[in-house]
Amino acid sequence: MSGKRAKKMNVTGAKICDELPYPETRDIVLPNQTECVSQIAVDIGGSLAKVVYFSKRPNTTKGGSLNFIKFETDKIDECIDFISSLVAARRNPDASDLKKKIVIKATGGGAHKFYDSFTKKLKEVKVEKEDEMECLIIGLNFLISEIPYEVFTYSEHDPMCFEGTPTPANMFPYMLVNIGSGVSILKVTDSDKFDRISGTSLGGGTLWGLLSLLTGAKSFDEMLELSKNGDNTNVDMLVGDIYGSDYNKIGLKSTTIASSMGKVFKKNVKQDVGNFRSEDISKSLLYMVSNNIGQIAYLNAKAHGLKRIYFGGCFIRGHPITMNTLSYAINFWSQGTIKALFLRHEGYLGAVGAFLKNKKQRSYSFSEIFTKPQMITEDSINAYGTLESTSTKLVAFPKLKNLDDYHPDTLQLTDPTAQRHWIDALEKNLHNLVELAVEWSSNGEYGEQYKEDVKRRASSFDTLFRSHLAMLRNQPNMYGALTVRSLLDLREQCLHELGFPDIFAKVKTEENKLALLNLQEILNKVDSIQSVEDKIELLIENVLAGNMFDWGSSQVLEMLRKGELSFETAKAKVTRPDHLNNTRSFIERITSKDKPPFKKAVIFVDNSGADIILGIIPFARFLISLGMDIILAANSFPAVNDITFEELSVVVTSIAEIDHLIAAAWTSKKLSVIGTGSASPCLDLRRINDDLAEECKDVDLVVLEGMGRAIHTNYNVKFTCESLKIAVFKNAITAMELGAHMYDAIVSYEGNN
Amino acid sequence: MSGKRAKKMNVTGAKICDELPYPETRDIVLPNQTECVSQIAVDIGGSLAKVVYFSKRPNTTKGGSLNFIKFETDKIDECIDFISSLVAARRNPDASDLKKKIVIKATGGGAHKFYDSFTKKLKEVKVEKEDEMECLIIGLNFLISEIPYEVFTYSEHDPMCFEGTPTPANMFPYMLVNIGSGVSILKVTDSDKFDRISGTSLGGGTLWGLLSLLTGAKSFDEMLELSKNGDNTNVDMLVGDIYGSDYNKIGLKSTTIASSMGKVFKKNVKQDVGNFRSEDISKSLLYMVSNNIGQIAYLNAKAHGLKRIYFGGCFIRGHPITMNTLSYAINFWSQGTIKALFLRHEGYLGAVGAFLKNKKQRSYSFSEIFTKPQMITEDSINAYGTLESTSTKLVAFPKLKNLDDYHPDTLQLTDPTAQRHWIDALEKNLHNLVELAVEWSSNGEYGEQYKEDVKRRASSFDTLFRSHLAMLRNQPNMYGALTVRSLLDLREQCLHELGFPDIFAKVKTEENKLALLNLQEILNKVDSIQSVEDKIELLIENVLAGNMFDWGSSQVLEMLRKGELSFETAKAKVTRPDHLNNTRSFIERITSKDKPPFKKAVIFVDNSGADIILGIIPFARFLISLGMDIILAANSFPAVNDITFEELSVVVTSIAEIDHLIAAAWTSKKLSVIGTGSASPCLDLRRINDDLAEECKDVDLVVLEGMGRAIHTNYNVKFTCESLKIAVFKNAITAMELGAHMYDAIVSYEGNN
Repeated sequence: MSGKRAKKMNVTGAKICDELPYPETRDIVLPNQTECVSQIAVDIGGSLAKVVYFSKRPNTTKGGSLNFIKFETDKIDECIDFISSLVAARRNPDASDLKKKIVIKATGGGAHKFYDSFTKKLKEVKVEKEDEMECLIIGLNFLISEIPYEVFTYSEHDPMCFEGTPTPANMFPYMLVNIGSGVSILKVTDSDKFDRISGTSLGGGTLWGLLSLLTGAKSFDEMLELSKNGDNTNVDMLVGDIYGSDYNKIGLKSTTIASSMGKVFKKNVKQDVGNFRSEDISKSLLYMVSNNIGQIAYLNAKAHGLKRIYFGGCFIRGHPITMNTLSYAINFWSQGTIKALFLRHEGYLGAVGAFLKNKKQRSYSFSEIFTKPQMITEDSINAYGTLESTSTKLVAFPKLKNLDDYHPDTLQLTDPTAQRHWIDALEKNLHNLVELAVEWSSNGEYGEQYKEDVKRRASSFDTLFRSHLAMLRNQPNMYGALTVRSLLDLREQCLHELGFPDIFAKVKTEENKLALLNLQEILNKVDSIQSVEDKIELLIENVLAGNMFDWGSSQVLEMLRKGELSFETAKAKVTRPDHLNNTRSFIERITSKDKPPFKKAVIFVDNSGADIILGIIPFARFLISLGMDIILAANSFPAVNDITFEELSVVVTSIAEIDHLIAAAWTSKKLSVIGTGSASPCLDLRRINDDLAEECKDVDLVVLEGMGRAIHTNYNVKFTCESLKIAVFKNAITAMELGAHMYDAIVSYEGNN
Repeated sequence: MSGKRAKKMNVTGAKICDELPYPETRDIVLPNQTECVSQIAVDIGGSLAKVVYFSKRPNTTKGGSLNFIKFETDKIDECIDFISSLVAARRNPDASDLKKKIVIKATGGGAHKFYDSFTKKLKEVKVEKEDEMECLIIGLNFLISEIPYEVFTYSEHDPMCFEGTPTPANMFPYMLVNIGSGVSILKVTDSDKFDRISGTSLGGGTLWGLLSLLTGAKSFDEMLELSKNGDNTNVDMLVGDIYGSDYNKIGLKSTTIASSMGKVFKKNVKQDVGNFRSEDISKSLLYMVSNNIGQIAYLNAKAHGLKRIYFGGCFIRGHPITMNTLSYAINFWSQGTIKALFLRHEGYLGAVGAFLKNKKQRSYSFSEIFTKPQMITEDSINAYGTLESTSTKLVAFPKLKNLDDYHPDTLQLTDPTAQRHWIDALEKNLHNLVELAVEWSSNGEYGEQYKEDVKRRASSFDTLFRSHLAMLRNQPNMYGALTVRSLLDLREQCLHELGFPDIFAKVKTEENKLALLNLQEILNKVDSIQSVEDKIELLIENVLAGNMFDWGSSQVLEMLRKGELSFETAKAKVTRPDHLNNTRSFIERITSKDKPPFKKAVIFVDNSGADIILGIIPFARFLISLGMDIILAANSFPAVNDITFEELSVVVTSIAEIDHLIAAAWTSKKLSVIGTGSASPCLDLRRINDDLAEECKDVDLVVLEGMGRAIHTNYNVKFTCESLKIAVFKNAITAMELGAHMYDAIVSYEGNN
C-alpha cells in the first residue's frame, strides 16, 4: 500500500517514488492497462452496479488510487468484462502484487443474484459477498470522517455549504437515506451499529420508469435536463388551484402542491387537452419523488430522534432541483431543526464499504484528487475525485484546541468577487508556471524527444488546469469548499497528473546550495550578539527575510526569476506593523525567569533555500541552544518550492557538517525532520502524518511559518500549547482581506492564557 | 325537524304522518321536485364537489333524509345547477319551510374559489363558508359516534369487520387521513380540537393523472377495474429481482416491492420492450400510492402516539385492493399495533360536517336507510345509505351494564352458511309478504286505480328487496354487519320506500279488537288464583302464548293467515325446557320478603293482538297491583305486526274502560306508554328515544319480550338492574344456533348479583 516507508536516521516520512531512469510520464487519460489493480469491490443494485477498484501505477511505490465507475445492472456482463480486464492487466510484468489471488468484495442485491455469473466468468478471482447495509454504513462512515468536504447542505442561495468533518464523539447517531431504485432508511448509532428502520418503493426506479414512459427520455440525465425547463404547475394541482388563494388557517400557501399530477386527469379525460409537456411532467415527478422521500425521511428521523440525515445513492447526481426539494422537505417538516446532508460520493457508499471490508486496519488515509473529476452531469453542482492513498495514516494534530471547530482555511472564498479574483490570479499565473515547467523539466540529458514530451505535457497541463478553473468559475464549490488552499492543491495535482511531480526540483537544489554558502555568515552574526533579546530579534528578522523567497507568490516570482532578490533586499522589503507583531512578547517569554523554559517545539517549515536555511535553521539552532528538542515538520511531497522532508534531511545533514551545534542535535536526535504527510503549500492540521502527530504530543511550542501555513491556513487556529506564527504577506488580496499590506510581516506569539 | 311530537296523556313518541286522504304513494325513484329541501351543504375539493342536502317529503311531518351526491369540480356548473333545482323545488306549494331563506354551507377549497359563482347564480340563498378541516372533523365525529356500522377494518379473510361505536370517553385521540386529490392528515384530540399535522401531494389526483396518461382509462372506476386484473410484478422491481431471493438479514421478503415501476425503465429504454399492460401499471401505481399513504399515516401516528387511524376522502371507494394495501401498510409498519379504520361515508366527512354546522344542537338523530344504497362501484365492498332524521334524539338505554361492549345482535351472520340461510329465508318469504301487502293495502274505498297502484308498488317492492338480497349475497356486510336485525330492518325500509308504511295496520286493528274481546276472561282467571306463585306462572304462560301471534315469523304466518292459531292452541305449542327457563327464580324474587319490592319496570313489548293484550297487559296489571310503576315501551314506527306506541295508547285507553286497575294506573300515570324510537322488530339499546331513556333511569326491572327484542337481539345483554327476558323461538335456525328448538320458550330472569 504505502510502499516502503523511508526511515533514515531521524527522518520520518514516505518517499515519492523509486528512482526512475527518467521522470514519470503520464497521459491525461491513462488506459487501465497501464495500472495495476490490487483490490476490487462492486455494489450491484437494482439499476446500477458501482465498481470501486484500487490501482497502482507501475514502477511507483506510492500507494495508489481508489477509482469509481458505474455500469447498468442490466448490462452486468459489461461490468464483469471490465473487472475481467482489470484482472488481466495484472499480468503486466511490471505489476507488483501479482502473486496474491485477487479478491472481489461484492455487495448489493446483485452480489447474490449474479454471484454465479461472477464466479464463472472471473475464474482467477475470489468473490466474497458482503452485507449491503453493513457496506453502506462502513462506506459512509469512512467518507464523512476521512474525506474532507464530503458532506454539504444545499440551499438555493448557498448551493454547497460544507459541513465540518465530524469527530468520533459527535458523528453518531445519524440517519442514512440511501436512494437507488428503491429507498432504504438506516439508523446508525455507532460505527458498527445500525438498523434498517424504514424504506420506500417510491425511489429512483419509480421516477425513471414513469418518465421513460411519459416523456420518452432515454436516460436519467435527459430526464433531469427536461425537468430543468419544466413548469410543474401545468400538471400539479396547487393549493391555489383548489382554494383560489392560500389556506391560511393551516398555513398552506397557494403555491403548495396539493396533488402531484393532480391537474392531469381532468384535463386529459374531461377536456381532452391531453397534451402535456415532457418538461412539466419531469419536474412534477421529480418534485413528487424527492418531496416524498424527504417527508418519509423526516418522519423517521423524528420518530427516532435523529438530527442528521445523510442522503446517499445514485438518485441525486448533484442535481440542484433534487437536492433543493429534499432540503426543502426536511426543512419544512422539521421546521428548520434538521438539515439534509448530501455526499459528493453519494453513489459509492456500498462499494467503498465493500472495498474497505478487505482491510480492517489501514496504515494509510486517502486524499482526493480532482484531476479527473467524476460525476459531473449537465447540471451537477458537485463532483468527486479519485481517492489516492496517502503514505501514512493522516490524523489530527494533537495540540489543536478545538478539533470540532477547526477549519484550516482562513478565507473561504464564498464571495463571488473573491472567487473570481483567485481563479483569475491562478489563470493569469498559469502561463508562467507552464514556462517554468518546460524550462526546469527539460533536462538536456534525456534528449530532444524527451524535451518534446515535456512541452506536450506542459501544454496538456495548461489545458487541464484551465478547464478546471473554468468549471470552478461556474460551480466554485464543486470539489469542496473553494479556498486558496484548494486551488493551489488542484494545481499541484494537475502538475503531478501530467508527469510533473516536482517542477521546482532544480530551483530548490540550486537555492539550497546558494543559501548553504551564506549560512555560516548568518550563524556567526547571530552568535556574535550578546543580548538574547537582540539575538531573537535578528533571528525573527531572518526568518521573515527568508520567507520572502517564495516561488508560489506570483508577485515574488518575477523578482526571483530575474535574481533581483537578495537576503538583504528581502529584509528591506518586509514591514513590521505593530498590530501584526508581538515579537516582544515572544522575547519576554523566552527570557522570562518566572515561566518554565520551553522543552520541545515543532516548526512547520515552508520554502527551500534562504527560507529554511537562513531563516529557520538559525532560529531552530537558537532554540536547541536553549536546551529544546526541535522537530522540523516539512511537506512529505513536493509543492512549489516548499522543501520536502527528504530534501530537508539532506540539507540538515549538510549543515551538520559545518555547524557543531546542529551536528550534535542531529546526532542526538534533539533535532529531527518529519514529513507532514502533505503535498500542499498549505496545511490542514486535521490531516497530518500519524508519526508526526505522535511526536508532537509533548511539544510545548508550535511554530507555523510562511504564508501558506500561517496565513492562508491556520491564521486563527488556537492550540493547547503556546504558539508562534511567523510569515510575510506576499499576496495583496489576502493582505487586504486580513487588514494588512503587501510584505507586511506577522509575528504572532500566543502564550498560555 | 322532528315534526310535531305527539303528547297525549302519558303517551310519548312521534307520529308517523299526518292524516292523509289516502296512504302515501311513492315511486322507486323520486324526482327531487317532489321533495322539499331545507338545508344544503357542499364540500368542493380539487376533483370532486360533494353535496349533502336534507329533504322532506311533502305532506309528512316525519323528519327527512340526508342525501349524498357528488359532482366533478371541473363541472362545478352542474353542481350549481343541481343546487339551483333543489332550491327551485321549494317553490312547490306543498313545501313547508318556504319562508325561511335557505342557507348553503360551503367548505373545501372550492368554497373559496367558487364563492362568487355560487352567490351569483344562487341569488335566493345565502352561502356561508366553513373551514374545511373543522368540517371534516365535525362530520367524522358525527359519523363514527352516531351512525351504526360506519367504521370497519379490512383484511383479505375478513373484508368488513365492524368496529363498535366509540363512547365519548374512548373516542379520542385519533388520526384522520383524508385522501382526495391530495392527502391531509389530522390529529384529533377532542370533538373540537384538531391539528393538520401532515399531508402528502401523492394522493388520488396523482393516481388518476398518471393512470389516465398511461392507460387511457377515462374514469377512476375503469382504473380500479384494470388494477383488479393486473400483475404489478411485471413492472415493479421486487426484492427478489435484485437479490434473487429474500434479503433475510433485514427481513425483506423476495416479494416485497423494492422499487415501484422499477422494471420499466430498463425494459423500456434498454430492451425496447416498451409494451406494458395497463392492468399491470394500474395495479402498481394503486399499490404505490396506497402504500405510501399508509406509510406516511403510520409514521405520523407513531410520532403523535395515535392508535386509531381513520381513512376518509373519495379515494378508497370501497375498493378491496386499496383498502387491503392501506391496511397492510399500517399493519406492517406498526407491527400489528395500529389498525386502519375505514368509513362507509368516507367521501362525505366535510360535506356532512358543513351540514351539521347549521345546527349546533340537534333534537334528533339519524338512521341509515339503504333502500337506495349509494357508492357501489364495480368492486365496492361497502355502501352507504341516506340518513333519515329520527323523530327524537336516540341515546343509549341507561341501564346497560357495559355500553362499550354492547352489541345488540345475538348472532352476527359471519358464517357464509348462516348468511345464505337468512337471505334464502327472506327471499322465500318475500312472495307471501307481497301478497299480504296487496291484500291488506288494497282498501276498496279508494277505487280501482288505487288498487292497481298498490299492485304496482308491491311488485316494485318485490324487485327492490330482491335486488338488495342479491347484493348482500355477494357482499354480505356492505350495509353494515349482516344480522337478522339488519335484514328485517332493510325489508321494512323497502316497504316504506314503496309507500307501504304499515301493511299490517288492518291485521293489527283486527287482532287488537279480537284480543280485547277475550281480555276480561283472562283477567278474571288471573284474579281468581289465590297463590301468587300460580298467578305469576299463569301470567308468564299467557305472555308466551301471546308471543306466538307473530306475523313476522314465516312458520307462524301461515297458521295466522288461516286462523288456525287460538290462544289455547298457542299455549299448547310452547315448550318450556328447563335450561332456558328460570320462572321459579323470578317468582321467588317477587314473593321474597328479604328483598325490597320492585318499584318500577319498563317492558319492551312486541306484537299487537293477543301478545300485548292477553299476554303483556295482564302481566303488567299484576305488577301494578304490587305497587309498581310500569312503562310499556313500544315501537315508534310500524314493523310487521309489532304494536306501535300510538296503537298501544289506544289499546290501553280501551282497556281502561273495562278494568278499573288499569284505568287507575293509566290516569295516575303509574302506567305509561312510550315510543322506543325504533321502527324495527328488533331492538338496539344504544339507540332509543331520549324521553324513554330519561324515564328508565330509575327502573329496577327491565322486561324484554319477544323474539326480536330478547332473542335476535339482547339475548346476552346485561343490565345494571334486574331483568326478565321472555320470548318464544319461532325460527328454527335461531333456535338451533342457541341450543333450543322450535317453540321453545325462554324465561330468563337475572337478579342483582
